[in-house]
Amino acid sequence: MADIRIDSQTLEQFVAAIWEKAGFTAEDAATEAHVLVWANLRGVDSHGVLRVPQYLANIARGGMNPHASIRIERETPAIALIEADMAFGPVVTSYAMEIVIAKARQVGIGWAVIRNTTHQGCMAYYPLLAVEQDMAGLALVCNPPNMAPYGARAAGVHNSPLAIAVPAGDRDPLVLDMATSMAAFGKINLAQDRRVPIPEGWALDSDGNPTTDPNEARILLPFGGYKASSLALMFETLSSVMAGNGLLTASLLGGERQRPGAQNSVVAAIDISAFTDVADYKGEIDRLIAAIKGLPPAKGFAEVLVPGEIENRVRVERSTTGIPLPEGTVMNLRQAARDLGVPLPAALAS
Amino acid sequence: MADIRIDSQTLEQFVAAIWEKAGFTAEDAATEAHVLVWANLRGVDSHGVLRVPQYLANIARGGMNPHASIRIERETPAIALIEADMAFGPVVTSYAMEIVIAKARQVGIGWAVIRNTTHQGCMAYYPLLAVEQDMAGLALVCNPPNMAPYGARAAGVHNSPLAIAVPAGDRDPLVLDMATSMAAFGKINLAQDRRVPIPEGWALDSDGNPTTDPNEARILLPFGGYKASSLALMFETLSSVMAGNGLLTASLLGGERQRPGAQNSVVAAIDISAFTDVADYKGEIDRLIAAIKGLPPAKGFAEVLVPGEIENRVRVERSTTGIPLPEGTVMNLRQAARDLGVPLPAALAS
Repeated sequence: MADIRIDSQTLEQFVAAIWEKAGFTAEDAATEAHVLVWANLRGVDSHGVLRVPQYLANIARGGMNPHASIRIERETPAIALIEADMAFGPVVTSYAMEIVIAKARQVGIGWAVIRNTTHQGCMAYYPLLAVEQDMAGLALVCNPPNMAPYGARAAGVHNSPLAIAVPAGDRDPLVLDMATSMAAFGKINLAQDRRVPIPEGWALDSDGNPTTDPNEARILLPFGGYKASSLALMFETLSSVMAGNGLLTASLLGGERQRPGAQNSVVAAIDISAFTDVADYKGEIDRLIAAIKGLPPAKGFAEVLVPGEIENRVRVERSTTGIPLPEGTVMNLRQAARDLGVPLPAALAS
Repeated sequence: MADIRIDSQTLEQFVAAIWEKAGFTAEDAATEAHVLVWANLRGVDSHGVLRVPQYLANIARGGMNPHASIRIERETPAIALIEADMAFGPVVTSYAMEIVIAKARQVGIGWAVIRNTTHQGCMAYYPLLAVEQDMAGLALVCNPPNMAPYGARAAGVHNSPLAIAVPAGDRDPLVLDMATSMAAFGKINLAQDRRVPIPEGWALDSDGNPTTDPNEARILLPFGGYKASSLALMFETLSSVMAGNGLLTASLLGGERQRPGAQNSVVAAIDISAFTDVADYKGEIDRLIAAIKGLPPAKGFAEVLVPGEIENRVRVERSTTGIPLPEGTVMNLRQAARDLGVPLPAALAS
């Protein structure tokens, strides 16, 4: 069966209706739907609407809270500590970005630690909120262990992603969004579906032995050996430990039981105008992109790409042709519509 | 010829005397000598006193400025933009750390961009200044291109290092200090000296072809493909471009001539007490270290190491047994002593 194409606005309204029926306010439902469909629009389907059934299950077992009481626990002109109370990740993280952007406008930088958020979707979304305000943005997140630290044969760190974005002038913004593992579990799932082996160095099996069988892969491996392994560990120290909510130790050593599905995050905004002229900055980013793209490509490469370029191309294409959804995703969305009594868009009808 | 061992205090006083004779104030000379010998003490000899002849040459050609006028150009309660005027890297960067630590104490975070610093030595030194004040520290630096971006066969980014450190309780602090290349040029130089090939994936030759011959290696390669390549590019956008002093574009596109040897840097401090209880934080870092070290080692590993652990072991050993200096370094130090009329310590006499 071929993928079904659906325009992003229709998909977003449909998914928002699902979240409203699941108990969220119209505003929170719209934010969550927007961030999921935003990921699909950019081709990051692993963080798009295929998450709907997983999130519905989380909501049902109390792992995502429609009535979350988001509150700022500590605050200065530059920093904030935010308790998310298991709110939808995009809801609390967008709010946290508003806070750090306002602080950056006042004192040049805003830096927030978020405790007990839930899955935030595609991390690139948040620094790009800062970019819209002529700021640099940063976001990272930590979860319980799913990756072996360098030199270990068991999971000890999370493959924590980091996203950084800055504005350009005529060009699209530069946006890096990378996990600290060689590959995300999404790519391993894809290899399962395609029945092809995964490359060496991606994963260990449940006994801690290297494997190329995607069905046996249980523990991710870091990229760059000790380097990304150490980055992941340091991210935990800046997020979970700073929030008084160590997720790695809770899993590895036991102790205080954490809320299942809870994750901790850092978001930041840096106001360019506090350092230099904004137009000059953006012009220089345009020149930098031109300089990198002007380099001779390596053998096997047609061109040199800059961070975010592939995703921006997919966005342009899918904004016109719609978002392709595979059969499995479509069936899950139909099921969710039936379960919750949400009208199914014509494009998704069987 | 076997290495010569010299105690760190004697070496530090000797190197400080060299910088004083080269025109620096006693205070600046002592700071530079301290950071160089600090690197040797931790086993990071590539960033230690072997740099003395290179720095003397830089000073002679105006690439390091004994009479630098370091000034804060812009400032808020949380950020600063500092013009280094080609001061010794350790002098201006230690000063910048004082500033961000003071700001962090007031508003929870301090973030500074340094323009036109010179070689800063071992980057781990600076975040550890924040750690001494119960803060997390961060430092990164950008230079002209020496690394091929992913997919390119020419240098386009710098293998910018990043250092992050946080305090522990009973344990040594966690400190990550990593370049964004697979290996630093120092390791390639070592392979030259040992007449052994370098691994595939480390470097390209001057024509942009992959090489395993250390004598042909001219362009570094990033670790993790596009990931560290993109990190290096984003670091330039947060340091050089934020300082209005784009180093990559200056090299790749021409335009305004930059000062040879100038580099741009970001340093930051985050006050733990703004977020959580400091004793709780440090205790949790101790638990985190114990958890990681308690994981079963992978095949071929005797133990799981945490960031900074190897360097701390070398520091303990060399604090007792002295710093081993190879013949070439000793000869260079003797030459510098002769040229500048500085008394040679007995340990280094021929």
